[in-house]
Amino acid sequence: MGPGPVTADPRVLRAMSAHLVGQFDPWMTDTMTETMGLYRDVFRTANEQTFLVDGTSRAGIEAALVSLVEPGDRVLVPVFGRFGHLLTEIAARCGAEVHTIEVPWGEVFAPEAVEDAVRAVRPKAVAVVQGDTSTTMCQPLADLGEICRRHDALLYCDATASLGGNDFEMDAWGLDVATAGLQKCLGGPSGSAPISIGDRAVAVIDARKHVEAGIRSDDDEDLGARIASNYLDLAQVMDYWGPRRLNHHTEATTMLYGARECARLLVEEGLDAAVARHARHGRAMLEGVRGLGLGVFGDVTHKMHNVVAVEIPDGVDGDKARTALLEDFGIEIGTSFGPLHGRVWRIGTMGYNARKDAVLVTLAALEQVLRGYGVPVTAGGGVGAAREVYA
Amino acid sequence: MGPGPVTADPRVLRAMSAHLVGQFDPWMTDTMTETMGLYRDVFRTANEQTFLVDGTSRAGIEAALVSLVEPGDRVLVPVFGRFGHLLTEIAARCGAEVHTIEVPWGEVFAPEAVEDAVRAVRPKAVAVVQGDTSTTMCQPLADLGEICRRHDALLYCDATASLGGNDFEMDAWGLDVATAGLQKCLGGPSGSAPISIGDRAVAVIDARKHVEAGIRSDDDEDLGARIASNYLDLAQVMDYWGPRRLNHHTEATTMLYGARECARLLVEEGLDAAVARHARHGRAMLEGVRGLGLGVFGDVTHKMHNVVAVEIPDGVDGDKARTALLEDFGIEIGTSFGPLHGRVWRIGTMGYNARKDAVLVTLAALEQVLRGYGVPVTAGGGVGAAREVYA
Repeated sequence: MGPGPVTADPRVLRAMSAHLVGQFDPWMTDTMTETMGLYRDVFRTANEQTFLVDGTSRAGIEAALVSLVEPGDRVLVPVFGRFGHLLTEIAARCGAEVHTIEVPWGEVFAPEAVEDAVRAVRPKAVAVVQGDTSTTMCQPLADLGEICRRHDALLYCDATASLGGNDFEMDAWGLDVATAGLQKCLGGPSGSAPISIGDRAVAVIDARKHVEAGIRSDDDEDLGARIASNYLDLAQVMDYWGPRRLNHHTEATTMLYGARECARLLVEEGLDAAVARHARHGRAMLEGVRGLGLGVFGDVTHKMHNVVAVEIPDGVDGDKARTALLEDFGIEIGTSFGPLHGRVWRIGTMGYNARKDAVLVTLAALEQVLRGYGVPVTAGGGVGAAREVYA
Repeated sequence: MGPGPVTADPRVLRAMSAHLVGQFDPWMTDTMTETMGLYRDVFRTANEQTFLVDGTSRAGIEAALVSLVEPGDRVLVPVFGRFGHLLTEIAARCGAEVHTIEVPWGEVFAPEAVEDAVRAVRPKAVAVVQGDTSTTMCQPLADLGEICRRHDALLYCDATASLGGNDFEMDAWGLDVATAGLQKCLGGPSGSAPISIGDRAVAVIDARKHVEAGIRSDDDEDLGARIASNYLDLAQVMDYWGPRRLNHHTEATTMLYGARECARLLVEEGLDAAVARHARHGRAMLEGVRGLGLGVFGDVTHKMHNVVAVEIPDGVDGDKARTALLEDFGIEIGTSFGPLHGRVWRIGTMGYNARKDAVLVTLAALEQVLRGYGVPVTAGGGVGAAREVYA
């Protein structure tokens, strides 16, 4: 019940024990193509270039940034938590001239603040996290695509922690590139990073295509500045997933099966229903911890549905309490980073864990652990408040 | 029965359907530590820094090179097939000044040729493939570590296609860094890249450590030129697998389970026994295709045990014959790259496919397919010759 990775859906784990086939077996390439279509539904996009990067969610982030950004390009990162800092780090390693704006942890940006910064910096790309689990905040994105288009900037979004559990509209919001991971609301294990790339970004990336030594043909000409990574070179990865099927990495078959099943689960449920489920169980957990008498960190009107930051009561050693919850009740919750380390616990309700029984058991166990530390919790207050949400 | 990825061992697939736990759960970190120990046995090394890179085998290659090599460093690559070209490509993208020596496809290098080039180039690192599946050749490595030490160069080896099926001695041969993948002789799916790093290389990598923004503490000082990748920054990945357990990527739990099971299978069997098994079934396949009257490409005294390149007989469309083998018999074999495309098929006997029944069924089916093309095959000649090897 932490901020992710969380318990995977048993259907996903079962899918991952299926037999392998060769990477160019027609069934394999059909499965790759099917998976592209499923993730178009998940990202709510018509982008042809929607596929998987073979690595954890940060491999997807780095693939996006290293393929979009050339050394010396300006990148603007609105930072509202630890994962905004990660975007600055990755962009800087790509050679970008990184500019940031910041709000205090627990807040999000108004669109006007982002536009002011875009106007001042004139970046090639804006890179923003949607849901930053370190603060639990969910940045509104609906206006940012239009802002970036107005100022001729590309908009990249890291939706790792939010996708599937919070509203996300790739095309309606005008996002150019978005990446995610399986280990949050998608109900799978980390190790595969779904990505979607719109036409404006595809043009930028393909303008730097260099087919690698060893497989290039005489027709392959070198374009623009070569992308600094081979593994995360999206120009080549698009040729591997596309009709040319140009050999690149060997697709991670078992992770593909897992990613496909994660998307199938969401598409079967319906994306709106999945978001509503996360909203419902997230609300129950929020009211539940409040019902125990605990404070909640941050501007909850902008809280992600799938995680809540709970203030650790005075006199409680946060890490010891987490250990007690794990050892005695088998339930894991998270700590946080930077300014919130030791100040909050992060409790998730996402993917397969966005379930009533998971919420109620967690609240019941947390009450017992807190009582053991002498915290004056309201007996039954957590489960009771959550039940009222469910009623 | 191609050159990999191949059928995974059912035990590995079963292990990959196990439940997930949180990334800092004590059982999870114990499992990571256990996996480090298992891969020390597989690589035959005492290197503390032996772990997994979360991506396919080329993620491991790129992690090694981007972490070792700084822009402007000289790297020497002895190229004897497609995957040597890949090393030049990746090293060049890391900013290296890449020097190559080449032998014709189907041959390997004498140690003297490598030493002459090292003497002339004076590289920071020599990067060499052990087994290049594109040609089936296995480069002898036993003398290269000593040569590199003599000339103060690091030695990196891509053992993706060879490890577990051919002799490999990380420490005895003086290799500084080696990487692999699961999808060849290790009997698993692609998506995880085992790596081992010796002390000389660890010192070079740690001299460039920059703990990332968002989690760095006041005690973390920046050292040397920052590694150009964040995802594949081995200085940080070592801190994630090591006692500091510094947050980095979220370890791909299911791939970890798979990688652990691959190593367990090899360690239970014994590395020497696994290599002998690959030698035996590889010999049976070699004699089998010869018994069908087919030619074999390359210097078979230096052939990897786990793959053979079979010359496509005159009058046979190699790709159509492969399709017939797949569609009618459910058996996949490979084509090749570059100068060998359309000239040879590559047939593997590796991992779970290094089995007598797999060898005999493949030879029996290949005979039928060839006969359909009017090739004058010796009836029963393939299976018969393989049986003689087994007898």
